[in-house]
Amino acid sequence: MTVKLTVDCMGGDFGPSVTVPAAVDFVRSHDDVELILVGLRDAIDAQLDRAGAKAQARLRVAPASEVVAMDDPIEVALRRKKDSSMRVALNLVKDGEAQGCVSAGNTGALMAVSRYVLKTLAGIERPALATFMPSQQGHTMVLDLGANVDCEPQHLLQFAEMGHAFVSAVDGKERPTIGLLNIGEEVIKGNDVIKRAGELLRASTLNFHGNVEGNDIFKGTTDVVVCDGFVGNAVLKASEGLAQMLMGMIREEFGRSVFSKVGAICALPVLKRLKRRTDHRRYSGAVLLGLRGLVIKSHGSADAYAFGVALERSYQAVRNGVQQRLAQALEENHLDPVQADVPQADLTQRAPLDARA
Amino acid sequence: MTVKLTVDCMGGDFGPSVTVPAAVDFVRSHDDVELILVGLRDAIDAQLDRAGAKAQARLRVAPASEVVAMDDPIEVALRRKKDSSMRVALNLVKDGEAQGCVSAGNTGALMAVSRYVLKTLAGIERPALATFMPSQQGHTMVLDLGANVDCEPQHLLQFAEMGHAFVSAVDGKERPTIGLLNIGEEVIKGNDVIKRAGELLRASTLNFHGNVEGNDIFKGTTDVVVCDGFVGNAVLKASEGLAQMLMGMIREEFGRSVFSKVGAICALPVLKRLKRRTDHRRYSGAVLLGLRGLVIKSHGSADAYAFGVALERSYQAVRNGVQQRLAQALEENHLDPVQADVPQADLTQRAPLDARA
Repeated sequence: MTVKLTVDCMGGDFGPSVTVPAAVDFVRSHDDVELILVGLRDAIDAQLDRAGAKAQARLRVAPASEVVAMDDPIEVALRRKKDSSMRVALNLVKDGEAQGCVSAGNTGALMAVSRYVLKTLAGIERPALATFMPSQQGHTMVLDLGANVDCEPQHLLQFAEMGHAFVSAVDGKERPTIGLLNIGEEVIKGNDVIKRAGELLRASTLNFHGNVEGNDIFKGTTDVVVCDGFVGNAVLKASEGLAQMLMGMIREEFGRSVFSKVGAICALPVLKRLKRRTDHRRYSGAVLLGLRGLVIKSHGSADAYAFGVALERSYQAVRNGVQQRLAQALEENHLDPVQADVPQADLTQRAPLDARA
Repeated sequence: MTVKLTVDCMGGDFGPSVTVPAAVDFVRSHDDVELILVGLRDAIDAQLDRAGAKAQARLRVAPASEVVAMDDPIEVALRRKKDSSMRVALNLVKDGEAQGCVSAGNTGALMAVSRYVLKTLAGIERPALATFMPSQQGHTMVLDLGANVDCEPQHLLQFAEMGHAFVSAVDGKERPTIGLLNIGEEVIKGNDVIKRAGELLRASTLNFHGNVEGNDIFKGTTDVVVCDGFVGNAVLKASEGLAQMLMGMIREEFGRSVFSKVGAICALPVLKRLKRRTDHRRYSGAVLLGLRGLVIKSHGSADAYAFGVALERSYQAVRNGVQQRLAQALEENHLDPVQADVPQADLTQRAPLDARA
């Protein structure tokens, strides 16, 4: 099977100067991949020239005349820039020209345009940005990471359903455990949205562990941690910042004196492994869950290595049929809100079952 | 000057078995300290006996017949348990018997009872829980860390004012920089509350840097980072969890083979320093800012070492006259909301100036 992906070459802080070299490296290292490079033709061609890849048959350029800037409001991305690289790349997925799209563009815009172009899966109102974060037990799937800054309780329930479906599809766990990120384990903790989300989760058929706190992500207390996008984004970025600071501290401590430098030489193989394990670029490539098509979001500040990781993630997802398995798992496990006996919870904002398909 | 502090001995996950030994050690190592141990007399006496400290003149027991449990709703702590150790310890501060109170109790309860007993400083509607987190530049003050789970824009402005006042009082910086935690640097990012808080901050006389992201806390981009308590708590606890996981990873990597164990022996002095620098217990003791009295909150899961750090923090705060300097700085720098020209911001929820004192 050939894996076909579209690449939004204009997204991210560095655009084609990062995305094109990463794409070139990727087709060179994967014989069964075809990439469609979407964006301003001249900018892409210039980078292909530099990389000596103009003749590469498995790289095709699909021109797009507009670019969604990192600070463009969602409305601009959605309504004005109809020929943006982001939009064109997603349209190619919708039309079946590719099995997935990779973009390092503006998260809010990517979410809005994806939702508009691809539509959501049955029962899902809003896609969520999800990624695995490392934990003492392996990894924890955390969502949402910034696609939804204001969530209602039923959105958190849907995130849990998507997390459940994704982890069961990818990790083969039948009933992954779900934690609700809160400021304490006790049921009484948190704001109103969180308390009502807890009620919905307890009433659901999901394997709900209960409230978890920030540290539980790294302890691996549950397989999935659900939170609104504002909190998830803050936690993700703070974690990246802390990991970078700690690695800097290690370098600093080992460089402090002749003795510690000798220690560093002895410890070099260990330090190298550690550096690799804590490199946040390895976790580049969050998946936009809940859409009728695979969309992978790379970090806006991604370099070519990190963007390559996002490409690899998309490639693996396509090869493993994640999108199909997710849709199937969602269908099988989807909680019927009408059956849930949760008097205090407001379910009125959720579309009725028959309107979902 | 003798520093007098009250200790809520019943707070925290472990109560007197942690708080009393920590208090005993603290008076033994500080000649100019008197501690009032508040709680169930028998439980405290038993621990004093065990520590051989019954005769210690600078430790006095103030009995309280009730205990605020870690999962007690705020209403119970506030209205039913009027003779709780927390309440009695705070009353002693109000009555001038002590200059500050240290508690590892339920955060929500501590905040509500402190606010009821001590009242807030002029211009502050809600106290905020604040702490310094380590950064590449030294440290960053982050607030709120969990005292306020739902914030309005003007609360975030007040947190910024308190952060400004505290950092200028403690670090001697004249115009500390303020960052607003958001999911992107761009002004258009974030939810409605954050956008309006940004408008208030831009219109204020504070040294507002603009939006910052989670990683900026550890980069040290600004002196102060302001966020709502839900986000702050999640970030704080995730950071603790990540730091613990990384230190575990270091242990694991160094224990992997004979070669790496040899590396560990060479690197031992460095690893010890690292362990000390990354021990989150060193950051135990957040300050509840905005009250007419000093209240320090220790971690609920604090052990005797961590609780001792919180005692030390309170001791230093009293010796440095932080409370007085904070009140003074707030008075000098306080933004008059009536003068701020922010048409879109809702300031109606803020008490009028003349009603504040």
